[in-house]
Amino acid sequence: MQGMMMQRPLLISDILTYAAEAFPKAEVVSARTEGDIHRTNYPEIRDRVGQLANALRAHGVQMGDRIATLAWNGYRHLELYYAISGIGAVCHTINPRLSAEQMIYIVNHAEDKVIFVDTTFVPILEALQSHFPADLTYVIMTDRAHMPDTKLPNALCYEELLAEQSSEIEWPLFDENTAAGLCYTSGTTGNPKGALYSHRSNVLHAMMISVTLSSTFGEGRKVLPVVPLFHVNAWGLPYAAPMSGLSLIFPGPAMDGPSLFKLMDSEEVYSAWGVPTIWMGLLAEIKAQGRKPKGFEDVVVGGSAAPRSMIETFEEMDISVGHAWGMTEMSPVGTHGTLPSTMKDAPFKERIDFKQTQGRRVFGVELKIVDDEGKTLPKDGEAVGELFVRGNAVVSGYFNNEEATAKALDADGWFGTGDVASISAEGILTIQDRAKDLIKSGGEWISSIDVENAAMSHPAIANCAAIGMPHPKWDERPVLVAIAAGDARPSVEEMHAHMSEHFAKWQLPDDIIWVEELPMTATGKVSKLNLRKQLADYVLPDLR
Amino acid sequence: MQGMMMQRPLLISDILTYAAEAFPKAEVVSARTEGDIHRTNYPEIRDRVGQLANALRAHGVQMGDRIATLAWNGYRHLELYYAISGIGAVCHTINPRLSAEQMIYIVNHAEDKVIFVDTTFVPILEALQSHFPADLTYVIMTDRAHMPDTKLPNALCYEELLAEQSSEIEWPLFDENTAAGLCYTSGTTGNPKGALYSHRSNVLHAMMISVTLSSTFGEGRKVLPVVPLFHVNAWGLPYAAPMSGLSLIFPGPAMDGPSLFKLMDSEEVYSAWGVPTIWMGLLAEIKAQGRKPKGFEDVVVGGSAAPRSMIETFEEMDISVGHAWGMTEMSPVGTHGTLPSTMKDAPFKERIDFKQTQGRRVFGVELKIVDDEGKTLPKDGEAVGELFVRGNAVVSGYFNNEEATAKALDADGWFGTGDVASISAEGILTIQDRAKDLIKSGGEWISSIDVENAAMSHPAIANCAAIGMPHPKWDERPVLVAIAAGDARPSVEEMHAHMSEHFAKWQLPDDIIWVEELPMTATGKVSKLNLRKQLADYVLPDLR
Repeated sequence: MQGMMMQRPLLISDILTYAAEAFPKAEVVSARTEGDIHRTNYPEIRDRVGQLANALRAHGVQMGDRIATLAWNGYRHLELYYAISGIGAVCHTINPRLSAEQMIYIVNHAEDKVIFVDTTFVPILEALQSHFPADLTYVIMTDRAHMPDTKLPNALCYEELLAEQSSEIEWPLFDENTAAGLCYTSGTTGNPKGALYSHRSNVLHAMMISVTLSSTFGEGRKVLPVVPLFHVNAWGLPYAAPMSGLSLIFPGPAMDGPSLFKLMDSEEVYSAWGVPTIWMGLLAEIKAQGRKPKGFEDVVVGGSAAPRSMIETFEEMDISVGHAWGMTEMSPVGTHGTLPSTMKDAPFKERIDFKQTQGRRVFGVELKIVDDEGKTLPKDGEAVGELFVRGNAVVSGYFNNEEATAKALDADGWFGTGDVASISAEGILTIQDRAKDLIKSGGEWISSIDVENAAMSHPAIANCAAIGMPHPKWDERPVLVAIAAGDARPSVEEMHAHMSEHFAKWQLPDDIIWVEELPMTATGKVSKLNLRKQLADYVLPDLR
Repeated sequence: MQGMMMQRPLLISDILTYAAEAFPKAEVVSARTEGDIHRTNYPEIRDRVGQLANALRAHGVQMGDRIATLAWNGYRHLELYYAISGIGAVCHTINPRLSAEQMIYIVNHAEDKVIFVDTTFVPILEALQSHFPADLTYVIMTDRAHMPDTKLPNALCYEELLAEQSSEIEWPLFDENTAAGLCYTSGTTGNPKGALYSHRSNVLHAMMISVTLSSTFGEGRKVLPVVPLFHVNAWGLPYAAPMSGLSLIFPGPAMDGPSLFKLMDSEEVYSAWGVPTIWMGLLAEIKAQGRKPKGFEDVVVGGSAAPRSMIETFEEMDISVGHAWGMTEMSPVGTHGTLPSTMKDAPFKERIDFKQTQGRRVFGVELKIVDDEGKTLPKDGEAVGELFVRGNAVVSGYFNNEEATAKALDADGWFGTGDVASISAEGILTIQDRAKDLIKSGGEWISSIDVENAAMSHPAIANCAAIGMPHPKWDERPVLVAIAAGDARPSVEEMHAHMSEHFAKWQLPDDIIWVEELPMTATGKVSKLNLRKQLADYVLPDLR
């Protein structure tokens, strides 16, 4: 028997309509490519989104069309999120750090009809334009005064597009499963694969994270997404923040430590979200200034595992660390490390122990771990297996990619994450490693994340990566590739002494390779794939 | 184009599974009919719900069957919520304060298959049993030791039912639009009408209120639903509290001021939810004790408009008032009066002014006001019209009642609330009155709520109701029916002097009728219908 309740589609347009009405005084503050700080609010954004949506329609954009963005975090990018999906088109966010080859692939694969681009990235498109479809429309996200001299054919000016249109729009109603957004995984192997989000998945995801992270999502708070709008919907903030009445502070291109500090300090940002590498820069600036930015009390760290030392440093400054885990294919949030209220008075070490885990699932995401045969393993904190997930904000396949789609889900409809993890009886997830980053030595597995965490707690090490190097007897042996924090270069023996508390002897790295920088992926993670390529000729010490 | 995201039905069973895993230390504390305080938690409830669901199936309960409850707020009632809906049956909560006639009507109209009853209410069922279907199964919600001697045929014992069963259950997956709950409006006219909630509507409603009331729904907090589980899902708390990791404190039968104070004080309840009449009792006890219950910081007042003096009294004690408005047909929350963060430092009077409104809509509910021709009126704080609502948690009709269903929605699919209201440009709802309670005098309308509020601020008045009495010249004239707070009985002239600041002379009541008590509806509101019946022979002073 069916209930007798109204059937209203869960649509993204309702979020902005609601925010503009309910939270007219929340702000959207953007550090712009024009070099200034721009301030607006949800009612103004709603009106401009109406203009933009009318402009898209005037230029022939139809439901289902893919409209690309190549842009920093800022109010115009936010407007694109709402205008494109509002009329039933698909907002395809492109990561500007992708290789030329990948970018050419995805623009053609997505069959983008229009591409919106920040002035910064115009040269990228100029260089690639000959590889893009001839009928692609280019719109440069600035006003007439700042329009660059460009070789892009018939490039339009964003502000002029808007100025021509009325802000009045009646948002269309359509099936809540309609595609709303497209984000390609940066894919360390093979071609990028597109996660195709729906209105239902994005609205539910926003509600899921807002329900779960209730202290972050308190009305009136200010949140800074350093995580880019071009990367998995900036972890859902463009939807969850307006829904909950938060102000959005956008850093634009300026994501170095001093710039972030200055913006956070002047805007009194409460919560900032981003990957560990970003926080290394901010923490260096905090150290230099001898204080934290005003109002800063909450940091969400995701994308890759937060080093223990980073968690400790934040917590010592009364900045609560929410260690989150997720994936592009999960919209992205899967778990979060909010400290349970029962642990509020626990000793510092216990609280850090907890926060070093990936925490518990948000409502709406299910987790299971399986062994090599696909058999479900117990949630006992001991068993380790590949992590599978299920939920309304998890992909069921990849856009226009039958091969990858066929491999995405197991027989019971769970998505395989490629992470290796344990889950405690209380549902606490601990990611051991990416399956492909595990180091196999003498038939046993060594977690590269564990090795990196232990090494990072040494003051001489600023950043590092542990990878397995081929060994004829042991299969692989771990080596540490490290960036020094200062002038000290501790020897392997010194590092062993430092790390031996947590490891058996055979788990310790055979060598340290000092480098000036580590190769990064387009989403700010250390690229172990590229690191392995760089070290293709490396020979382990005992084989030399 | 459709997104490529998993399709998982929004099911109520997922809430309890999640709570048991994520919040194992949250408590469910119940003042029981057995006379003691019972303590449990979500993992134990999950296990018992498994047993109960297996017991229902063993007794032949199928998807779509209506299973009734006649019970106080307590853990067993909560278990019924989850076990019944978990297997796809419909939890039909019956208000024990209904008249015999109404109860006979709804048990037969719902075609209940099983009825679960607290020992307190066994005599009610014994008296009515001959009017119920012969094959109705009775289950008494206690253990063998407390089973009453009853005339109910073949009455089963709740704890024995559970003890026979395994706690293991795999919750079935089904369409999220499947009916989950049934609640009849107490209906001041005609037969009660059944709102038939779905899994989708209940899950979304829980997320909606949790997102919007983020400070109430912080993990680890304790919430006391005085609002009954038999009344519109206790305003959604049985779902939203476990979803957000709150402890549930149930008052059982003891809802008088001293009992509530004692329970709230010993359990350190943070947030308590109920109708104004309940808070009058609690406030009297707070006054008697000279302090508020420990930990009490948040009160949600709904069901009928909170008198201004009540809001002031709570706020003066640093108990934040969330003035909510909703309906049985809305699951029920429509709006809430959480103070915007921008008003935190506003003067006391301004804050109370704000809190006296019904506040702003929760995400997922839309509001409009219309004139007599059904034309939408502006949201300008001035225009007053009948309030219509739309949303996933709003009914589209009534269970098995074609006539009422046909009248429920307007041509655009909005539900008519029967309330008369204005909405400000910032979306703030002010209910002027129930349409049928408005007093029409000389072609103008007088809000009975406004008259009551002004009268209630006089110290001599404990409670009151304003109603329109027939007048040959003016159509109607207002009279005040009042309960005195002490020995003083101010004259009509004295009351006019007190109230004249806020009213034109013609809006002031023509008479005060002092009474010992006011007739109440089954849901704790003053029954103006019965009041008018009681005063059928009343004649206005100038007509005597």
